Amino acid sequence: MNFYGSYITNLIKELSSLPGIGSKTAQRLAFYIINMPEENAAALSKAIIEAKKNIKYCSVCCNISDSDVCTVCDNLKRDHATIMVVEDPRDMAAYERTKEYKGVYHVLHGAISPMAGIGPEDIHIKELLERIHKKAPKEIIIATNPNVEGEATAMYLSRLIKPLGINVSRIANGVPVGGDLEYVDEVTLSRALEGRRPM
Amino acid sequence: MNFYGSYITNLIKELSSLPGIGSKTAQRLAFYIINMPEENAAALSKAIIEAKKNIKYCSVCCNISDSDVCTVCDNLKRDHATIMVVEDPRDMAAYERTKEYKGVYHVLHGAISPMAGIGPEDIHIKELLERIHKKAPKEIIIATNPNVEGEATAMYLSRLIKPLGINVSRIANGVPVGGDLEYVDEVTLSRALEGRRPM
Repeated sequence: MNFYGSYITNLIKELSSLPGIGSKTAQRLAFYIINMPEENAAALSKAIIEAKKNIKYCSVCCNISDSDVCTVCDNLKRDHATIMVVEDPRDMAAYERTKEYKGVYHVLHGAISPMAGIGPEDIHIKELLERIHKKAPKEIIIATNPNVEGEATAMYLSRLIKPLGINVSRIANGVPVGGDLEYVDEVTLSRALEGRRPM
Repeated sequence: MNFYGSYITNLIKELSSLPGIGSKTAQRLAFYIINMPEENAAALSKAIIEAKKNIKYCSVCCNISDSDVCTVCDNLKRDHATIMVVEDPRDMAAYERTKEYKGVYHVLHGAISPMAGIGPEDIHIKELLERIHKKAPKEIIIATNPNVEGEATAMYLSRLIKPLGINVSRIANGVPVGGDLEYVDEVTLSRALEGRRPM
């Protein structure tokens, strides 16, 4: 029902098309927006259009970037012989926040998922292989998500890359730091046991 | 840290300024937006600007409206001698959804709250009094929220309007339908007892 007039109703409709935003939240956000100062609403509106319009991908690693080459790939202090393969720019950001990893990345923008109709040609695997052929890196670290799609993608990549004589590794499965063993699932516990290291 | 380039970072910043949207949700929304079809992103952006620009208030009841008089005030089938006073257009919408109320509304756009520095002159009480003087309604139903600010506003309005010889009522306090007595707070239980009705 249209209780608020067409402009607000339309805004509520648009907002509730976003993931995780139900109709109640969309309503709350819409009322917040119409009570915002004019320039803030304009800034929000512009940010959406600008981000969509100016989105570019790094020509080396396929990460989102402002320029042709992203800041990580452009950094000569990084170890360009080690490439970490991730599914998403957010996964890359998560590893960047650790401040531990000094190599570079390759962003697949997805994972192989036959159920969703996503095959190897739909994600940036071709670019990764070209990069490997051109630069001959020392190691490929596969850091796809530890779920069915991520594991399938890791397996697929490993089978493609290993025959090229390049080291391929996978990030470890195990109990998360700060976690409670009692609440950790069986598969993770088994993997943690398999992957035990001498102290 | 700027892992995603300035446009995405800016969009994330703008989105996380919205209420209830933390940095993780803002990130998720931003990535959803940049993966949206161009026209959907444009529609969302436009909806924000349009809603902000075209927001109008009904000259009778102060509800949000597309035109000078809102659809409820413009409806001759409604009982214009009964006015329900609510804090917010969303409260009005909530009562409209019941499909039970046949009168009209007055939207205060807030409640008296000395703690937040909101006095009677900051909400649309003046317009309500003018409307009462002009139209001499039969009954004013006060449906402000059942919290401290809403009760204070109800009290204030009742003291202003009763001396004009107009019936003033307040929506009932009591146990919510479908609720469980065990979980209802003491004040509500006491009010429900006070307000008991013969069966």
